[in-house]
Amino acid sequence: MLTNKRTVPVEFGHCDPSGIVYNPNYFIWFDFSVHALLASGGVTLKALMSESGIDGIPVVEYRSKFLAPARWGDELLIETSIVGLHRSAFDIQHRIFNGSVLTVDCAETRVCTAVDVQQGRVRAQALPDKLVELFSGRRP
Amino acid sequence: MLTNKRTVPVEFGHCDPSGIVYNPNYFIWFDFSVHALLASGGVTLKALMSESGIDGIPVVEYRSKFLAPARWGDELLIETSIVGLHRSAFDIQHRIFNGSVLTVDCAETRVCTAVDVQQGRVRAQALPDKLVELFSGRRP
Amino acid sequence: MLTNKRTVPVEFGHCDPSGIVYNPNYFIWFDFSVHALLASGGVTLKALMSESGIDGIPVVEYRSKFLAPARWGDELLIETSIVGLHRSAFDIQHRIFNGSVLTVDCAETRVCTAVDVQQGRVRAQALPDKLVELFSGRRP
Amino acid sequence: MLTNKRTVPVEFGHCDPSGIVYNPNYFIWFDFSVHALLASGGVTLKALMSESGIDGIPVVEYRSKFLAPARWGDELLIETSIVGLHRSAFDIQHRIFNGSVLTVDCAETRVCTAVDVQQGRVRAQALPDKLVELFSGRRP
Repeated sequence: MLTNKRTVPVEFGHCDPSGIVYNPNYFIWFDFSVHALLASGGVTLKALMSESGIDGIPVVEYRSKFLAPARWGDELLIETSIVGLHRSAFDIQHRIFNGSVLTVDCAETRVCTAVDVQQGRVRAQALPDKLVELFSGRRP
Repeated sequence: MLTNKRTVPVEFGHCDPSGIVYNPNYFIWFDFSVHALLASGGVTLKALMSESGIDGIPVVEYRSKFLAPARWGDELLIETSIVGLHRSAFDIQHRIFNGSVLTVDCAETRVCTAVDVQQGRVRAQALPDKLVELFSGRRP
Repeated sequence: MLTNKRTVPVEFGHCDPSGIVYNPNYFIWFDFSVHALLASGGVTLKALMSESGIDGIPVVEYRSKFLAPARWGDELLIETSIVGLHRSAFDIQHRIFNGSVLTVDCAETRVCTAVDVQQGRVRAQALPDKLVELFSGRRP
Repeated sequence: MLTNKRTVPVEFGHCDPSGIVYNPNYFIWFDFSVHALLASGGVTLKALMSESGIDGIPVVEYRSKFLAPARWGDELLIETSIVGLHRSAFDIQHRIFNGSVLTVDCAETRVCTAVDVQQGRVRAQALPDKLVELFSGRRP
């Protein structure tokens, strides 16, 4: 299935007084990596939203392990892959390498949502065909 | 074992273009909540570091479920508890309530670390007595 | 004119590897302080937007001086005041005290905006009466 | 004098509920741009600190104008230049272009600092020769 790699330099401003990456930054990077994964297939969330009637792909679960610290000046490689497709959800794996060292391993699940106007609440929505094709590598 | 509650107002700036809390903010709040838990027992990480020879309590694992969105203007209650004590690590549970709705449930594990000068690398370190006493509620 | 004070504890996660507040956090706090100033008069931006046809109050200028560092564990007092009213803009002053020391002094200007549907672009909009009354202290 | 350009894609997560860049992000980008300017001359703050006895280059002033909004999906060009050299301080100008539109114009001043051990407080410190050479373009 679809995979994408990107590099992120660890900046001074990403780090805490211990001199290592302040943990919440990883979740910002995971989010940017999901958008980069979509973009690698020519898809933007913005276009998906206007074309497919979905209003978002919020995260419903993270299971992340932080195996080694990363420091100011390091350059990280983030490898993001689709690892599961469901009716209205999809599973992602992020692996972050610092040189040859696997420093973070994270499983993420997102769901497609849309507002149910009748009930005035958010509901899960089937994955748009475009996403299924992109994620499964079945693009024409 | 030790538990602490705090409220967090959801600000405009915490939210993304969907109008809901931008996910990485939850991990900032979890971090602040761990420090608040320590502070509720009169402990600061700063003092722990200078007294106990540890140099940090980095997160090694998060398992978090996002059950409902929170929106700009909501007021969240974050309930943070110690749920497990190990030789050099401790387990935390964060539950975030939006009114009566459980919106986020997160299990976190942190480890005490210190630099091993001989080997020039970070190593796990036994929990300082002060932390064990505080977390287990066995304070005199 | 209207003024408001709030305290902000400097958290571990607000600080950079130098151990002082990472500068962009001040601008997050300024933003939260403007919303707190509105809230002190019973006004929310959300309500303003739905009632007054404005779609935001973006910042158009900051002039800020950082006079002294603030450190992890400090408690800051942020004093936010309206210091100027114009047709579609308003001027704010933020002063941050760390104990008795003035650490940051910032002048901010915001403008009320609305989308001009005819021209499809954002335009300045006269301040809603509610804001003028609130800011000038002329509330009934 | 020294100048550097870099591009920054505006991500979903950089934007607020109005759909435009949440203002504090600009100050994160300014900070990263200063480090990139140093790096363009082969200098890192980390090395400067260990070689020159300075302990930081904190911001003492920003004067920034936000001339037009930037939106999710835009690609910004940040042009960062040294525009003034003083004994212990230096002036920077950041100009952010969104396509051909100048969207942000910011003047920044930073100072070199070191801890005065005798007095136990932070003091301004003369700019290291390496910085003066780099900034003035007088590198051999």
